[in-house]
Amino acid sequence: MRSLALGVVGGAGRPGPGRVVARSAEGVVDVGSLADVEAGPYPELLAAHTLDALLAAGRPAWREVHGWLAARLGEDHAPYVLPPAGLQMRLPFSVADYVDFFACEQHAANAARIARPSGPPLAPNWKHLPVGYHGRAGTVAVSGTPVVRPSGQRAAGDLGPTRSLDVEAELGFVLGGSAGPVAMDDALDHVFGVVVLNDWSARDVQAFESRPLGPLLGKSFATSISAWVTPLDELAAAWVDPPPRDPEPLPHLLGTADRGLDVALELAINGEVVSRPPAIDLYWTAAQLIAHLTSNGAPLRAGDLLGSGTVSGARRDQRGCLLELSWGGTEPVQVGTGARTYLEDGDEVVISATAPAVGGGRVALGEVRGRVHPASRSGTAPV
Amino acid sequence: MRSLALGVVGGAGRPGPGRVVARSAEGVVDVGSLADVEAGPYPELLAAHTLDALLAAGRPAWREVHGWLAARLGEDHAPYVLPPAGLQMRLPFSVADYVDFFACEQHAANAARIARPSGPPLAPNWKHLPVGYHGRAGTVAVSGTPVVRPSGQRAAGDLGPTRSLDVEAELGFVLGGSAGPVAMDDALDHVFGVVVLNDWSARDVQAFESRPLGPLLGKSFATSISAWVTPLDELAAAWVDPPPRDPEPLPHLLGTADRGLDVALELAINGEVVSRPPAIDLYWTAAQLIAHLTSNGAPLRAGDLLGSGTVSGARRDQRGCLLELSWGGTEPVQVGTGARTYLEDGDEVVISATAPAVGGGRVALGEVRGRVHPASRSGTAPV
Repeated sequence: MRSLALGVVGGAGRPGPGRVVARSAEGVVDVGSLADVEAGPYPELLAAHTLDALLAAGRPAWREVHGWLAARLGEDHAPYVLPPAGLQMRLPFSVADYVDFFACEQHAANAARIARPSGPPLAPNWKHLPVGYHGRAGTVAVSGTPVVRPSGQRAAGDLGPTRSLDVEAELGFVLGGSAGPVAMDDALDHVFGVVVLNDWSARDVQAFESRPLGPLLGKSFATSISAWVTPLDELAAAWVDPPPRDPEPLPHLLGTADRGLDVALELAINGEVVSRPPAIDLYWTAAQLIAHLTSNGAPLRAGDLLGSGTVSGARRDQRGCLLELSWGGTEPVQVGTGARTYLEDGDEVVISATAPAVGGGRVALGEVRGRVHPASRSGTAPV
Repeated sequence: MRSLALGVVGGAGRPGPGRVVARSAEGVVDVGSLADVEAGPYPELLAAHTLDALLAAGRPAWREVHGWLAARLGEDHAPYVLPPAGLQMRLPFSVADYVDFFACEQHAANAARIARPSGPPLAPNWKHLPVGYHGRAGTVAVSGTPVVRPSGQRAAGDLGPTRSLDVEAELGFVLGGSAGPVAMDDALDHVFGVVVLNDWSARDVQAFESRPLGPLLGKSFATSISAWVTPLDELAAAWVDPPPRDPEPLPHLLGTADRGLDVALELAINGEVVSRPPAIDLYWTAAQLIAHLTSNGAPLRAGDLLGSGTVSGARRDQRGCLLELSWGGTEPVQVGTGARTYLEDGDEVVISATAPAVGGGRVALGEVRGRVHPASRSGTAPV
C-alpha cells in the first residue's frame, strides 16, 4: 500500500525545533537532507522546521516536490531513514484559521432527527450552502495527544465533566498557496493535502451552549489531526463525481473542481472497528467549501484547516460519531466486552483512512489517535 | 485627556517591517529607540516589529513598561516623536484565536425580540454562561482598512451584495501572558489591554446561514480593531462593580476579578454621532469571558482577541448596532440629511471610546474607523 505523506518530527535526542519528514514504506525519511544532498527541488522548503513555508509556496512547488519524492522514495533511500527510536511526530503546520463544516447529508439529517424527532431532517439552509463554523485553531493537536475529558455546563447550572464525550470522523483539508479569495475553478490549487481529523465533542455542553451562536466549549477543548499530511497529488485516483443534488448549487459553487474524494474512513475504539464512514458520500466537496468560505471576500491563508464535518453513510455501521451510532445515547454500541453510548475514560480512539492509488491498490492516509484521560480533579479545568 | 496606548507603525519612507510605537499627547513615539537610548525596561520587547513579544511576556513586564512609559511620556520626549507624514498604523499584533461574545443583556434581548417578537427575550443558556463563537482571526484588520460590501446568500438561492450591512460597537480584550487555562482570579493578569472593535455584520447572510452552527460568512469578511491598544494598567480608575445577576453565576465565574469597565463608546456615521453605548452595562465581565473560555481546558495563547459583543444601553440612543437602532430595518435612523436602516456604500463609521482616568479626567481609547466600499463587480467576491 502506498503511504507517501509529509509531516514534522522532533525528538530522537534532538531537542528544539522539528524538521520536515516524509513517510515511505521504509520509514520516516529526512527529506531536508535528501533534498540538500541530492539537489532535490525547493531544498529550503524541505529543510525546514514545519510545513509552513511549503504550504505558502503553492501548487507548482507542491507538484514538483511530490513528483520528485514519489520517484525518489521508490528507489533506495535507506541512508535518509531516521532511526525510529524516540522520534515524536509534531503538529505539522501552524494552523491559521480552522473552519469545521457540516458537509455530510446523512450526518446532518441524523443529528437533526436525534435532536428533534418530529422536526424536519435538515435546516432550510442546508442544501443551499455548506453550513460551517470557525473552531479553535489553538487547540488543534497532533495525533497521539491525550484528550482530557472536559468539564462544562451540561445543563443550566450543572457544571461537571461531560457525560457525552464523542468523536467525529472527518477529512481535513490543509490549505496553502497565495492568500486571497478563491473562485471555484482555482479552489483545488489551494489544497496542499488531506489529514484525518477527529473533532472531539462534548455533546451535553454543546447542546446547552449553542443557541444562537453555535458550538464553543463543546468543541474547543481539542481537535486532533493525523501527523501525516497526504499531498492531494497522491490522491489523483480518488476523485469521483459529486452526489446528485437538489436544488442545483448556485453557479459560484459549480465547476470542474466540484469532485468528491473516494476516501474510506475507519473508526476504531480500543482496537475494535465500530464504523466505516465513506467520505465518497459527502454532499459538499472540498472545492465548494473553499469557494463558499471566500465568497464574501474573506481571504484564505496558508495553514487554514477545513474539516468536512462528521462523515456518515446510510448504514448504521457507517456512522462517524457516537451521537449517531448510539442514536443520542439510547442504543449502546458493543465495543469488545463492553457497551458504549459515549466515550469512557481510558478509551483509545483511532481513525484511519485509505483511498484508491494511482496504478491500482490503495493509499493509506495518516491515522489520528487519541486516548481519553479523566477530567481534572477540580471538576473544572484550571487548577 | 490621557491617551497612552501602544501600536505598530509602518511607512514614513521605511518599507518592510513595522515598529512598536506609543501614543502620547505630542504624537507617535518611537518607544524602541526611547527604551534603547534611555535604558528603559525590556528594550528587546519594545524595539520589535509587532506587539507579539510584549504580549507573550506577561503582566509583570506589562506593568513595568506601562509605569515607565506613563512617567517618561509625561516629560519632554520630542526627539522620539516620529514625523507624522506618511506614517501608517498597522495591525498591532498577530491575532491567534478571535472569540466574539454576546455579553450585553440589552443587545441579546433586543436581537431576540427583533428576530422573534413573540418569543422569550433571552435563550435559556444566556444567564448561565457567556454565549460566544469563534470568529475569523485572518480577517481582523486595523482601523482605516476599507470594508468591501460582502456578497452572500441573503435567502435561499438569492446571491448578491448584502442589503443589511451593519456595525457592532464592541470592546476587544487583547490577551497574553503564559499559555494555559486560567482561573477567574488570574484572568485579568492575561489581559494586556483593550481595543475598540467593530464587528461588521451582514445581517441577511447571517440570518440565513446561522442554523444550527452560528454565524460564518455574515461576520467573517471583516472585523476592525483600533490601531491603538490601551494597556489595562491605564484603565485602573475605570473598574466598577458588575451589574446585579440572577441567577448568581457558578463559582468558577465569580471572584474579585469580576469587575466591569466604565468605558463610554460613541458610534458615529459620516461624522454624526448616532449612539453612545455604555460598556459599564455589560452583564458578563472580561474575567468571566476568559474563565469561561478556558473552563474546558482550552489554553489561551498570546494574541488571542476577545470581543465583548455589541454594547447597548437601555435607551434607543445607546444601541450599538443598526439592527437595534433601526429595529430590524423597520425604523430608519437619521444620519445627517439622510435616513439609514443599514449602511450605504460610501458611509464611514467611527467608533471611539473614553474611560475615567487615574487622577481625574478621561482616558481616550483608540478609535476604529472604516469606510464601506461597493461590492465587487462580479456580485460574488472572487474575480
